[in-house]
Amino acid sequence: MSWQAIGIFDSGVGGLTVLREIFRVLPQEDTIYFGDTARVPYGTKSPETVDRYAREITSFLVKRDIKLLIVACNTASAVALNNLKRDFPIPVVGVIEPGARRAVEVTRSGRIGVIGTSGTIKSSAYTRAIKRLNPAAEVLTRACPLFVPLAEEGWTDNQVARLTAQSYLQELKEAGVDTLVLGCTHYPLLKNIIAEVMGPDVILVDSAEETGRTVAEILTKKKLLRPVTEKGNHHFFVSDIPAGFIRVGNRFLGGKLGDVYQVNLDDEREED
Amino acid sequence: MSWQAIGIFDSGVGGLTVLREIFRVLPQEDTIYFGDTARVPYGTKSPETVDRYAREITSFLVKRDIKLLIVACNTASAVALNNLKRDFPIPVVGVIEPGARRAVEVTRSGRIGVIGTSGTIKSSAYTRAIKRLNPAAEVLTRACPLFVPLAEEGWTDNQVARLTAQSYLQELKEAGVDTLVLGCTHYPLLKNIIAEVMGPDVILVDSAEETGRTVAEILTKKKLLRPVTEKGNHHFFVSDIPAGFIRVGNRFLGGKLGDVYQVNLDDEREED
Repeated sequence: MSWQAIGIFDSGVGGLTVLREIFRVLPQEDTIYFGDTARVPYGTKSPETVDRYAREITSFLVKRDIKLLIVACNTASAVALNNLKRDFPIPVVGVIEPGARRAVEVTRSGRIGVIGTSGTIKSSAYTRAIKRLNPAAEVLTRACPLFVPLAEEGWTDNQVARLTAQSYLQELKEAGVDTLVLGCTHYPLLKNIIAEVMGPDVILVDSAEETGRTVAEILTKKKLLRPVTEKGNHHFFVSDIPAGFIRVGNRFLGGKLGDVYQVNLDDEREED
Repeated sequence: MSWQAIGIFDSGVGGLTVLREIFRVLPQEDTIYFGDTARVPYGTKSPETVDRYAREITSFLVKRDIKLLIVACNTASAVALNNLKRDFPIPVVGVIEPGARRAVEVTRSGRIGVIGTSGTIKSSAYTRAIKRLNPAAEVLTRACPLFVPLAEEGWTDNQVARLTAQSYLQELKEAGVDTLVLGCTHYPLLKNIIAEVMGPDVILVDSAEETGRTVAEILTKKKLLRPVTEKGNHHFFVSDIPAGFIRVGNRFLGGKLGDVYQVNLDDEREED
């Protein structure tokens, strides 16, 4: 048993869908969320830069005594996960591996679709993770750049979202994938529309959900869970003015966002 | 007459619509464009941070001996323009003032609509600029967060763009504005759809166009124009990997983007 919190970070607000899953499966746990809103997006930045950012944030969270770290950001998961695992003395969970594993488990035909931001798709991180688990799998990918702004705008169930989803997903649907990985932490908000467009025969793999499940497994195995009778407290930090994060974040968490504090990671560094 | 180049910067790719106007009205001029793609977007960052970024980029361009600077970024225009004018010995033109001036000139009813990113609308920069010129003007504003990703995706003339424009612009249309300022450098790409939704009675003010006109006026008055028989050369610099900038930029400039070089402003600073 451990009373320490679960740490979780993303380049911005998207990781809140993963936090929402933690709330659902582990409501007894304290959490500390860090959104790097001053430096979002990561997808266009060089691997060296993203690695440095991930390391700075992890140091910040580890100083606050977390027992496990979730890298709830696809770019950082692709680029920095192994380094973080090597350099920090706590379990580190990314969002790519859990989604890839689930996709390989549930596909019948072996034709797996993956959607994500341009950066994630170009990195081929999901394709590599899936192929590692099942070299025979056929992976078809599609970048869906408008899904993130649609989710942040709250347009998750209107005609604009529907037409956008049809346009992006048509090819994957025609190609006959039987499993579709939502390879971006924003996409769970568009799950209904995506399911409607793909039809009932395609299984959607929600990386956020799978990551939540993986975290529960690890903490159970390591006997680090708090008693289920507890109720967790939740803290939020961002690296730029919190206004935008609060507005969009409440949409992601259904109004359950607590106080959000702005921190300057440069100041943190100087304290060392 | 001056053979020096015109300098122009934006947080990313949006300022290219302003550059396009410079190509159109002053094809004889050399230009140097800087897109701060490593730190885009500016709209969510604090004024102090944006001011510092603007200053760094202006130093970079001034070292390359420009004769005039265009701040082709709404956030930087709102925050840093006066400081840049004070601290650098060249004419500095922003994108807000030209659009505001034009709107005040063309409106008959005095009811002016302004659309822009959330950051620009929240800053009230256009409202202030318009009210300064005509305190009796009535300014109605609307943030249109999906317009930027639509423009970058090249979805400027499809049903998604049309429905999005209808949703964003309905209120302004019903409120009876007779002039609408496109208060974001991306929006000229959506001009046709916006015109279609607003109808023939509403005059669209294209900030990029007005900024180009203002630059031509200043250079004419200061006798800094090159002979019209010349053909300008164009250089492009960005602060992160150029791939995304090249892909989207060619869409903005109709394929006329030249070589794009990545520079690290930190290294520039050390050279000083």
